[in-house]
Amino acid sequence: MIAVGERINGMFNDVKKAIQTRDARIIQDLARRQTEAGAKYLDLNVGTAAEDPEAAMRWLVETTQAAVQTPIAIDSQRLRVIKAGLEVARVPVMINSTKSDPEQLDKFMPLALEHNAALVCLTITAEGVPQDVNKRVEICANIVAKAQEHGMPMDKVFIDPIVLPINVAQDQPKYIIEVIQQTKVLSDPPPRTIVGLSNISQGTSQRALINRIALVMFIAAGLDAAIVDVLDSDLMDAAITAEMLLNKQIYSDSFLKAGRM
Amino acid sequence: MIAVGERINGMFNDVKKAIQTRDARIIQDLARRQTEAGAKYLDLNVGTAAEDPEAAMRWLVETTQAAVQTPIAIDSQRLRVIKAGLEVARVPVMINSTKSDPEQLDKFMPLALEHNAALVCLTITAEGVPQDVNKRVEICANIVAKAQEHGMPMDKVFIDPIVLPINVAQDQPKYIIEVIQQTKVLSDPPPRTIVGLSNISQGTSQRALINRIALVMFIAAGLDAAIVDVLDSDLMDAAITAEMLLNKQIYSDSFLKAGRM
Repeated sequence: MIAVGERINGMFNDVKKAIQTRDARIIQDLARRQTEAGAKYLDLNVGTAAEDPEAAMRWLVETTQAAVQTPIAIDSQRLRVIKAGLEVARVPVMINSTKSDPEQLDKFMPLALEHNAALVCLTITAEGVPQDVNKRVEICANIVAKAQEHGMPMDKVFIDPIVLPINVAQDQPKYIIEVIQQTKVLSDPPPRTIVGLSNISQGTSQRALINRIALVMFIAAGLDAAIVDVLDSDLMDAAITAEMLLNKQIYSDSFLKAGRM
Repeated sequence: MIAVGERINGMFNDVKKAIQTRDARIIQDLARRQTEAGAKYLDLNVGTAAEDPEAAMRWLVETTQAAVQTPIAIDSQRLRVIKAGLEVARVPVMINSTKSDPEQLDKFMPLALEHNAALVCLTITAEGVPQDVNKRVEICANIVAKAQEHGMPMDKVFIDPIVLPINVAQDQPKYIIEVIQQTKVLSDPPPRTIVGLSNISQGTSQRALINRIALVMFIAAGLDAAIVDVLDSDLMDAAITAEMLLNKQIYSDSFLKAGRM
C-alpha cells in the first residue's frame, strides 16, 4: 500500500502554528519522521492557518523538500493553492484532489499531465457524495473515460470513493469495499484507489482500532493507497501484515521492518 | 462471527495435565473465562493426553457442561472419540470435524442429524489438502450436494477451507479468501464457513498480529465462524470491529462490549 502521511496539515495545532510563524523545524521534523515511518508521499495542507494560502503552500512545499526526497501530495480544495504548490515542487507530486464533474477533470487532468503528477479524483460531483455503489461506480467509469481521453496513464489516477464517519453512515464501508473491487475491472490496467482513512472514525470511542480494521478490509478488497497517520505504528503494522498475507510482500521474520522501506 | 474457543485442548500443558489428573477446576475455569470473553462454542480436544481418549472426552464434555451452558464443539480425528462425546452432551453441539470424501460424509452427516449437531467439513479428501481454489471449491460443492442428499440444514454445515502456516504457504490466504467468497454462492441458503485460525501464524515472529489481520480479511470475505483464542482480547476486538464495519452489529460507543454478548 502506498502510505500518504497525513500529518502536515494546518488542522493540527502544531502545524497551524508552524505555518503562521514559518517555523521550518516543526514541518521538517514531521517530514523526516513520516518518511522513516514508511510514508511514500507526504500530504501538505495549509488548512485555515494562513492569510495567504498560496504563499503558505509554496513555503510548505519548499520547506518539506529541503528536508526529504519523499514525493509530496499537494492537498487543497482550491485550484490556485494547488498551482502555487506545483510551481515550486521539484520532487514527484500528487494533486489531492479534484471533484469528478467532466469540466473539473478537463481542468485538472491536463494540469496533472503537465507536471507529471498523480491525481486524486473524488467520487463527488456537483450533486454531492453518492450514497450507493452504483452511482459511485458510474463516476469511476467517467473518470476512467476522461483519463483515456486526456491520455493520462492509469497508474497516475487515484480514485477516492469517499470514506464517511461510521457513526453516521454505517452502511458505507461495505459500499467502499465494493467500489474498490469494481474499480479494478473498469479498465486494463485499472486506475488506482485511495482513501482518506481517518474520517471513518470521526467522533467514535475507538478511533485507532476502527481506522486499523477498516484499512485492512479495504486492502483485502484491493486498495492501492491511503492517506493515514503513518506515525501510528499499529496502523502501519496492520497494513503491512495485510499486504504480506496477500503475498504482495515476502514473509520473513522482519517483514514489519521491510514493509516500511 | 461465531467464535469457537480453542483453549480446552490437550495440546496445551495445563489442559493436558488437567485431563490426566481429572482436575475439573482448570477446565471449568477455562470454560467460564472463554464464555465471558465471547465464545459461542467451546472446542474440546483431548489431544494426546489420555490413555483412554473416549473416557477423557466424556469427562471433558461433562465437566464443561457442568460449568457453563455454552454449546460445545467435540474435536477429534477419531469417530469413536466424537461418539463418546455425543453420548453425554446435553448442550447443543458441533462435530469438529470430518474429511469430505463422500463415504466420510455419508457416515458423519447422519450422525450430525441424529444429534442435531453442526458439522465441520474440512476441504480435505483422501488425496490430501488441495493447494488451489478450484479443487477446494469442487470439494465444497460436493459437501453441499451431500448435505442436500442427507437433508442437512445448511446453517449446520461449516466448511473449513484449511488454513496453512503463512511462512510455508504464502499464496494460501488469497485462496482461502476466494473459497470463502465462492462458497457463499454454492446454494441458497449457503453453507457456513469456518477456519482454524491459529495455524496461519505457526512458526512466525508475530503470531498475534498475523492471526488478527488474517481474521479481519477472512471476515471481510464473508467468514461465519472461527476457532480462535477468544482470550486474546485484541483478536476479539478486531473481529468485532470488522463485523461492526460490515454493519452486522450496530455502532455504539460500547460496541466492543456488546459484541461479546
